[in-house]
Amino acid sequence: MQAVIDYLKENEQRFITELCRYLSFPSVSAQAAHQKDMRACADWLVEHCREIGMDSRLCPTAGHPVVIAKVRPATPGAVHRSHFLVYGHYDVQPPEPFDLWKSPPFEPRVEGRSLFARGACDNKGQNFAHLKAVEAYLKTGTELPCGITFVIEGEEEVGSASLAPFLKEHREELNCSAIIISDTGMPSLKHPALTYGLRGIVAFEVVLHGPNRDLHSGIFGGTVDNPAMILCQILARLKDKNGRVAIPGFYDDVQPLSTFERKQMARFPFNQRAYQKLLGVPKLNGERGYTPIEQRSARPTLEINGLTSGYQGEGSKTIVPSWARAKITTRLVPRQNPERIIKLVSGHLKKLCPPTVRVEINSGHGAEPYLVSPTGPQAQAALRALEAGFGCKPVLMREGGSIPIVSDFKRILGADSLMLGLSLPDDNAHSPNEKFNLDCFAKGQLMSAHLWQELSKA
Amino acid sequence: MQAVIDYLKENEQRFITELCRYLSFPSVSAQAAHQKDMRACADWLVEHCREIGMDSRLCPTAGHPVVIAKVRPATPGAVHRSHFLVYGHYDVQPPEPFDLWKSPPFEPRVEGRSLFARGACDNKGQNFAHLKAVEAYLKTGTELPCGITFVIEGEEEVGSASLAPFLKEHREELNCSAIIISDTGMPSLKHPALTYGLRGIVAFEVVLHGPNRDLHSGIFGGTVDNPAMILCQILARLKDKNGRVAIPGFYDDVQPLSTFERKQMARFPFNQRAYQKLLGVPKLNGERGYTPIEQRSARPTLEINGLTSGYQGEGSKTIVPSWARAKITTRLVPRQNPERIIKLVSGHLKKLCPPTVRVEINSGHGAEPYLVSPTGPQAQAALRALEAGFGCKPVLMREGGSIPIVSDFKRILGADSLMLGLSLPDDNAHSPNEKFNLDCFAKGQLMSAHLWQELSKA
Repeated sequence: MQAVIDYLKENEQRFITELCRYLSFPSVSAQAAHQKDMRACADWLVEHCREIGMDSRLCPTAGHPVVIAKVRPATPGAVHRSHFLVYGHYDVQPPEPFDLWKSPPFEPRVEGRSLFARGACDNKGQNFAHLKAVEAYLKTGTELPCGITFVIEGEEEVGSASLAPFLKEHREELNCSAIIISDTGMPSLKHPALTYGLRGIVAFEVVLHGPNRDLHSGIFGGTVDNPAMILCQILARLKDKNGRVAIPGFYDDVQPLSTFERKQMARFPFNQRAYQKLLGVPKLNGERGYTPIEQRSARPTLEINGLTSGYQGEGSKTIVPSWARAKITTRLVPRQNPERIIKLVSGHLKKLCPPTVRVEINSGHGAEPYLVSPTGPQAQAALRALEAGFGCKPVLMREGGSIPIVSDFKRILGADSLMLGLSLPDDNAHSPNEKFNLDCFAKGQLMSAHLWQELSKA
Repeated sequence: MQAVIDYLKENEQRFITELCRYLSFPSVSAQAAHQKDMRACADWLVEHCREIGMDSRLCPTAGHPVVIAKVRPATPGAVHRSHFLVYGHYDVQPPEPFDLWKSPPFEPRVEGRSLFARGACDNKGQNFAHLKAVEAYLKTGTELPCGITFVIEGEEEVGSASLAPFLKEHREELNCSAIIISDTGMPSLKHPALTYGLRGIVAFEVVLHGPNRDLHSGIFGGTVDNPAMILCQILARLKDKNGRVAIPGFYDDVQPLSTFERKQMARFPFNQRAYQKLLGVPKLNGERGYTPIEQRSARPTLEINGLTSGYQGEGSKTIVPSWARAKITTRLVPRQNPERIIKLVSGHLKKLCPPTVRVEINSGHGAEPYLVSPTGPQAQAALRALEAGFGCKPVLMREGGSIPIVSDFKRILGADSLMLGLSLPDDNAHSPNEKFNLDCFAKGQLMSAHLWQELSKA
């Protein structure tokens, strides 16, 4: 093991340079214009895994291809006693708005211990840490105690539509004892974390159609309903004064938080003033009766992600807009079902819509919420690896985000996911100036190196 | 008078030919490429007024020049008892998109009683009708009972920025009893109209600032207020269930519609089903207690002209947006004051804004509403002239839009404006295939010929 640890230390700078190359691909899965960049990024990753010493290939899907990379058993023909999957994604969120970035999103920049680029923490930096740990085993000739297969997809930021069919098709090849995912967060460098729960998600668009064209507000204004105003009036009614989602039945299936869980969550290091300052809001506000930690990880939400209507340029344009659109996501917690929620929300929106406009609802991606026991042997092994990698006691947490494929893994491969996130709260995931902490990168590699030992003992 | 009437009849064909020449100049004020065409059009107009027998000249401004043309008193040295201004503009809207025109916009084409060309109704055809009436007086040696000065500007379609300074500079020369403007509409050939009121306007932007950046809705969502949702909740409260603006004090200064006015408006020809079909809305809706005609011309409104927040591209982006913005205009009616309204609205928005977000309000342009008594002697004279010209009883109407220069005339010259529009609802002003009805042209000339007699008796 010492050779592995030494190798990681000695090659730290080179690893950063390589990660910068990985981050320079504008692999934006949501934007058709980046189709070629997506492919170039995947090709580069396959080649890089090959150089590390793994068997790697690009697997086509109906959407963006999946990168598969496997460790060959040290003795040809031998079979590993246990096998683990490492999941990650090479696609990134759209970088817009560009003008808020201090340096171009696809020209990685190191400042202190921060590496700035779109995808730095979400998720290239995190999956690359695991790759570098495996490289250390392979390049130092240290035997890996288990089989490892990397599955790095290209559609995580757009709903992972092709992953479930891919898993079904490769079910036998991907048979494993657990899936390792580093795509979540940790509260601080001194609090490495095992995430045992995730929120689910449902995304949709509401479009209200009014007049057949933008109307002159002087000539026609006053005689027809304004779709932008009606949209505001409908959306306004989706949240009540207590910060709760005001859609009948929305909370029906929510599994209440146990006393044990609320106690664990209270252990989580959290400074309300620092948090508020980090987000730059005049005042925090969430669902009444819950702490901020509970609000953001264990309670469901409804958020407007975007509003579009009428004239948005300089100055003013005196129109009644022809249409208005809102992009909305709801975060779900365990026992809530995405299909049921989208039906509830659609039905409620249609009910709220007056006969003066026409409502159109487009469902987007959905993901089940997820919960796994934090006291099982694999979770315990993961907690030991975290402690060895980071040199301090890890915390147990729930994540407020969604990793849609965790439920797919459970359903299709029958295996649980261990979420060992390496992203810090100020990493600006999905925001301008996204970054990855280089200590998280280095300690994450060390954690990964220990993980294979601990998991094989579990 | 019979000589004037006969002259107009005898020269009808020549007038159409001359109007076609006037329309063949691509006098597009908004486009720098047409600078020379603007000047050529103005020069032609000055020369044409001279040929008619008027004193005409081109007056430079900071922008496009103004054409001034005056009738000389029949007896040299005599002074007219009363003096009137005819306002018009020789500039036109951009003709784009060209492919939607059935014939080139600057190659006038007569089909039946329609003359197709850019500027046909807005405004060359209308100001030319008045010029031809004056020509009939001058060429038949019929004494005009009043002085007449034409002010035909070249910047109406780009905001008339040079007109107010021009009026101030020539205040003495332009001293008059009233301004005649034919630049509005009439509901049908059987309904010549005097427009006696205009709505005013106030434009502003509301921006709500929440987190200092777009936040990951999974990681942070649930703990902070969403600016897009708060904007919706605030805007939703600006209109009540009866379609009224729900801002305390908003209606305080509104001059109520008199029984006489409501009776006049009820005479306006209006087919609700055809109107609804024209706008393509599932159902009309406006302020309860008022007819659509009243709602769109004589009642104040508040319209959201545009909404902007968060992610607006393809697919979805799971964020809590950092900010949300609405562009809003309110249309004002007589006695409402733009400054007072902007103060009211700003104050109310600030009051509605919770402490979890920061509100920013940016005021834009404003224009006073306008009303001239429909029962005064000048209005009555105009109505008699309309009846004499068109051979049927005219209607009294208010216009829902704003004509900023009307307030300038009032403020600078101290005179009221009589709006005698000759444009029909299907004339496609500002749209492809703009036209002018040749009956409106001929009857408009006759109306103008009578107008000077009626006004001088008033």
